[in-house]
Amino acid sequence: MATTRARLRGGIDLGGTKIQAVAIDGRRVVRGQARRPTPSGDGPEGVAIAMAETMREAVAAAGAAPAQLVAVGVGAPGAVDEASGVVARSGNIPGWEGSFGLGGALAEDLGVPVAVGNDVDLATEAEFRLGAGRPYRSLLGVFWGTGVGGGLILDGKRWTGRGKAGEIGHVVVTLDGAPCPCGRRGCLEAYAGRGAMEARARKFVKKGGKTSLFDIQRRRDKERLTSRVWADALARKDSLATRLVDEAIAALGAAIASAVNLLDVEAVVIGGGLGTRLGQPYADRIAVAMQPHLFVADRPPAVHVAALGDLGGAIGAALRAA
Amino acid sequence: MATTRARLRGGIDLGGTKIQAVAIDGRRVVRGQARRPTPSGDGPEGVAIAMAETMREAVAAAGAAPAQLVAVGVGAPGAVDEASGVVARSGNIPGWEGSFGLGGALAEDLGVPVAVGNDVDLATEAEFRLGAGRPYRSLLGVFWGTGVGGGLILDGKRWTGRGKAGEIGHVVVTLDGAPCPCGRRGCLEAYAGRGAMEARARKFVKKGGKTSLFDIQRRRDKERLTSRVWADALARKDSLATRLVDEAIAALGAAIASAVNLLDVEAVVIGGGLGTRLGQPYADRIAVAMQPHLFVADRPPAVHVAALGDLGGAIGAALRAA
Repeated sequence: MATTRARLRGGIDLGGTKIQAVAIDGRRVVRGQARRPTPSGDGPEGVAIAMAETMREAVAAAGAAPAQLVAVGVGAPGAVDEASGVVARSGNIPGWEGSFGLGGALAEDLGVPVAVGNDVDLATEAEFRLGAGRPYRSLLGVFWGTGVGGGLILDGKRWTGRGKAGEIGHVVVTLDGAPCPCGRRGCLEAYAGRGAMEARARKFVKKGGKTSLFDIQRRRDKERLTSRVWADALARKDSLATRLVDEAIAALGAAIASAVNLLDVEAVVIGGGLGTRLGQPYADRIAVAMQPHLFVADRPPAVHVAALGDLGGAIGAALRAA
Repeated sequence: MATTRARLRGGIDLGGTKIQAVAIDGRRVVRGQARRPTPSGDGPEGVAIAMAETMREAVAAAGAAPAQLVAVGVGAPGAVDEASGVVARSGNIPGWEGSFGLGGALAEDLGVPVAVGNDVDLATEAEFRLGAGRPYRSLLGVFWGTGVGGGLILDGKRWTGRGKAGEIGHVVVTLDGAPCPCGRRGCLEAYAGRGAMEARARKFVKKGGKTSLFDIQRRRDKERLTSRVWADALARKDSLATRLVDEAIAALGAAIASAVNLLDVEAVVIGGGLGTRLGQPYADRIAVAMQPHLFVADRPPAVHVAALGDLGGAIGAALRAA
């Protein structure tokens, strides 16, 4: 990438398996990026050190000097306190027990102000400002990955309620339905979260069922059934993968239609690991699955795949950097 | 009621079985009210004439002269075009086929400006401004009657989306679930709407089941299982009524919790015929039924019964009168 002398803002998206950092310039163009696995076993302190290093790497990839980085935004999963930068209950980050002052630790390490926000909110805002949501004033972002997260833009502004809005993954799609990783029953995520889908696939195999999912996983040397593993299994018409993804799409259709019946937003943006990997054909299938549940069936919302793909969370974080 | 010389604003709530009118003064105090059955068989023109008469009756009940009425607001079910005052698809008003210029017809008859809005939106706004929702900046109104309607206040303003937000009655609670009067499957209204509950009760009796519901209906000389009939049957521990209301509460709990997971509003206000008739003990039961589905379980929203009761829709309409 060409050398830049611009002032850069950094964005870091903290995920359960990877840390993604970007450095953007004043025109909100990504000038550099870097990605590292999320370290496990060193607790939140170790995660913070790896995040700072990934950020410096992204600045270097922009051909910029460290001093050109003037502010950083961070998107984190779990319960984020934006005012203090403290992140608690980050259940999908290994070893993250209790609360940790992530914003403070990074600000000290990087020597710049750090703003911390919810990862899914930031990704939704990025899609709204720079991605598939640009033409709209109201939208629902649905992040279909290990879990199913959601973010809302209403009348051009993010809606967070009392701080925890957007949990479309825990909209009930079937009363007394399947157990959800969250401990409840019948949530969307119980059918459509990649974590829950993997648990179902393992159960199926334990009972003697056949699937290529775990062969593909081994061949790709992955610890989990990643989005790529699912996409490969679908491409070779694996019957279990096809059935579980069909069920996920039916559940996504019902839950998103319920949200649209309630909010009547203009658009839905489908992101997340599975959402971006499977792309617009599957976003279109979700739109079809919504149709029978839409109260105003003749005026469905637009359904787009996330335009910023994997970088949306980090770009959204950079936009939040002050 | 004492004679008044104040300028009055009128509000008319058009329901499937009754027309409710109120006249409020500048301090938003109800000075007079009147109620008539909704005429069937004369089409929308006949309904408009009856609405104007009910409005005049409410003004007279306030001890006021007709000229003291300066503006009127109307809450109507169905698809309301606020700009033109045209109401279409008012499915639960007998004989209301196609579109009708309700605002224009009433303005001509009453000789004052008439604003038309959605009945449930107006009732929600009334609860927010004058009723159980006053302490809050965000709330969900749930109107539990023949159907289940909903309205949203977000950040102190009503949220209508592209014009049709708030349809909590058509949030899916069970994928491929019970048939709903709307023609879809598994909606909240399929379990909790008084219309759907009556259909279930009739089916049960047809199959030889025993219930006191229809005896109570006959004794009260009602054409339908009204909220009062249900309340009476519950009071005498009728087992079918108890079971159907239990199922309705379970469905309300799941759908409202889903809405709270999505929007994280501060409060839920339960109104409508059944909601106001059964009162706070049943609102409390709905709060209990929400609990297992709430993503942030340790900080549930407040759940209140509607404070304005049956008059909320008409008062909300009067507040809208310009």
